Amino acid sequence: MSFKLTILGSSSAIPTIDRNPTAQLLNVNERFFLIDCGEGTQVQLRKYQLSFQRISHIFISHLHGDHYFGLIGLISSMHLLGRKKDLHIHAHKELKEIIDLQLRSSDTELNFPLFFHPIPEDLEGVIFEDDNIKVSNLLLDHSIKCSGFVFEEIRSKRKIIKSEVEKLNVPYDKMKSLKNGVDWINKKGEIIPNEQLTIENSKPHTYAFCSDTRYNEQLISKIEGVDLLYHETTFKKDLEERAFQTGHSTTLQAASIARRSNVKSLLIGHYSQRYRDFQELADESKEIFENVIVSYSGLEIDFKKLQ
Amino acid sequence: MSFKLTILGSSSAIPTIDRNPTAQLLNVNERFFLIDCGEGTQVQLRKYQLSFQRISHIFISHLHGDHYFGLIGLISSMHLLGRKKDLHIHAHKELKEIIDLQLRSSDTELNFPLFFHPIPEDLEGVIFEDDNIKVSNLLLDHSIKCSGFVFEEIRSKRKIIKSEVEKLNVPYDKMKSLKNGVDWINKKGEIIPNEQLTIENSKPHTYAFCSDTRYNEQLISKIEGVDLLYHETTFKKDLEERAFQTGHSTTLQAASIARRSNVKSLLIGHYSQRYRDFQELADESKEIFENVIVSYSGLEIDFKKLQ
Repeated sequence: MSFKLTILGSSSAIPTIDRNPTAQLLNVNERFFLIDCGEGTQVQLRKYQLSFQRISHIFISHLHGDHYFGLIGLISSMHLLGRKKDLHIHAHKELKEIIDLQLRSSDTELNFPLFFHPIPEDLEGVIFEDDNIKVSNLLLDHSIKCSGFVFEEIRSKRKIIKSEVEKLNVPYDKMKSLKNGVDWINKKGEIIPNEQLTIENSKPHTYAFCSDTRYNEQLISKIEGVDLLYHETTFKKDLEERAFQTGHSTTLQAASIARRSNVKSLLIGHYSQRYRDFQELADESKEIFENVIVSYSGLEIDFKKLQ
Repeated sequence: MSFKLTILGSSSAIPTIDRNPTAQLLNVNERFFLIDCGEGTQVQLRKYQLSFQRISHIFISHLHGDHYFGLIGLISSMHLLGRKKDLHIHAHKELKEIIDLQLRSSDTELNFPLFFHPIPEDLEGVIFEDDNIKVSNLLLDHSIKCSGFVFEEIRSKRKIIKSEVEKLNVPYDKMKSLKNGVDWINKKGEIIPNEQLTIENSKPHTYAFCSDTRYNEQLISKIEGVDLLYHETTFKKDLEERAFQTGHSTTLQAASIARRSNVKSLLIGHYSQRYRDFQELADESKEIFENVIVSYSGLEIDFKKLQ
């Protein structure tokens, strides 16, 4: 199972020649989830040779432009390039109105089914689930309503030892129970212990995306122990007041959340335009939490390789 | 007086790494007019070091995304960068609804006055005029309602000979009448002939922007003799039927309009994604009309130097 994140943009507010606003692509077993979609995201996807027709679900955290102004263009290009397969958008309800109005104004009837799933505004919980992944929303503390997302891989407890089940001719319909740790009884009535046919599966991967938000201790219990926490660091530590006023966080605040929630790694981003050297921001975060990754366009994070 | 056009994007439909959708910047005596604003236009303006805060008027031809998806991002960046001065948008009325909805959804109250001027849907005429320029709309024949624009420089008939008026101490309030060809009577009652104080002014520059449109002979009389005609050439000559079906033009059709309206130069663009070599499109147009310019991002056309 692949579980990989590609950063398509890591800046805040204003796109420039070399800095793209927020967008990330999560690949869970070749199923693609786009998280936020600032202006120019479709070109970033092309740049990193990530087929946007394979994206099945798009999650938009909030309706500030640097997190969604690229969405209508992406939808439009999917349409023009002949997409047929379903697209699911999870976002606050106003986004549906914006998309509908823009499609109507251009007299466009999409070639593909577009399903819009409003994110609850005051409740947290699972907003999407299939065999591979469960996605929950988080209530963030920003200047407008804003949602974080937790992506949890779903895995069986046990992993089949292919050579053993083939050798003993275990029927295919028994695989599910084997994965859940159940022993197998063969035609002769012999009990084959589960341990002979399976091994323990590795821990499922987890990713928490938190942008944009003030320092918010209520997040801690909800993201406890995730493999990777993306937490915005719009400002350096000296601008804590500015961060509070604008609904953002500093390097130290993000690191404090990471430390207190015992995550494995912290991914920082959503940098203010005033900063050029993002390593300086990482160094500040490292004062509190050691395992810090600097996000930049094109960065690919393979969760299997996270320490 | 400067009269210069910079191309910011010349492709149709889908933005890619090296091809931007339609946007052009017209500089009339250091007053900046943006014509169309596909996704990524604000980054193109930065790339070519054209300050977008100096843009006073934006003209949007129609509400297909490749002509306006970059507008809300541009407005948003103008706001975030502290713009105070007025911005005027000329577009079909639905665009106001789209902008208003997006600003409302992000709880944004712009720092600067935004004036929206709906383009008449069924009428042609002057839609903006000041001391330097007159802008008229054209009804184009596209798949949705679509407007072309004619930009006509306003100049006095005569140009002051500075050394002469200084020598004779002609009062400042007489300049307007001098520019209109009137003689000057000095304090002694002597008539100073206008020809002594002024010379004939050069012809005002004119630019017609026609994208997107089918071949439309009704345009001919309205763009007669302009210095530069931008006429879309989405397709090569072999795809005339496809052009008609999709509301576009071929290389030969654009050239035919240019020839029959006696324009000085034809600027081609809005190329379909299927073409890589735009010179091939220009060569086709040249079969009918010789003076063809290929538009590409970054091209600057100084109307003074047009042949």
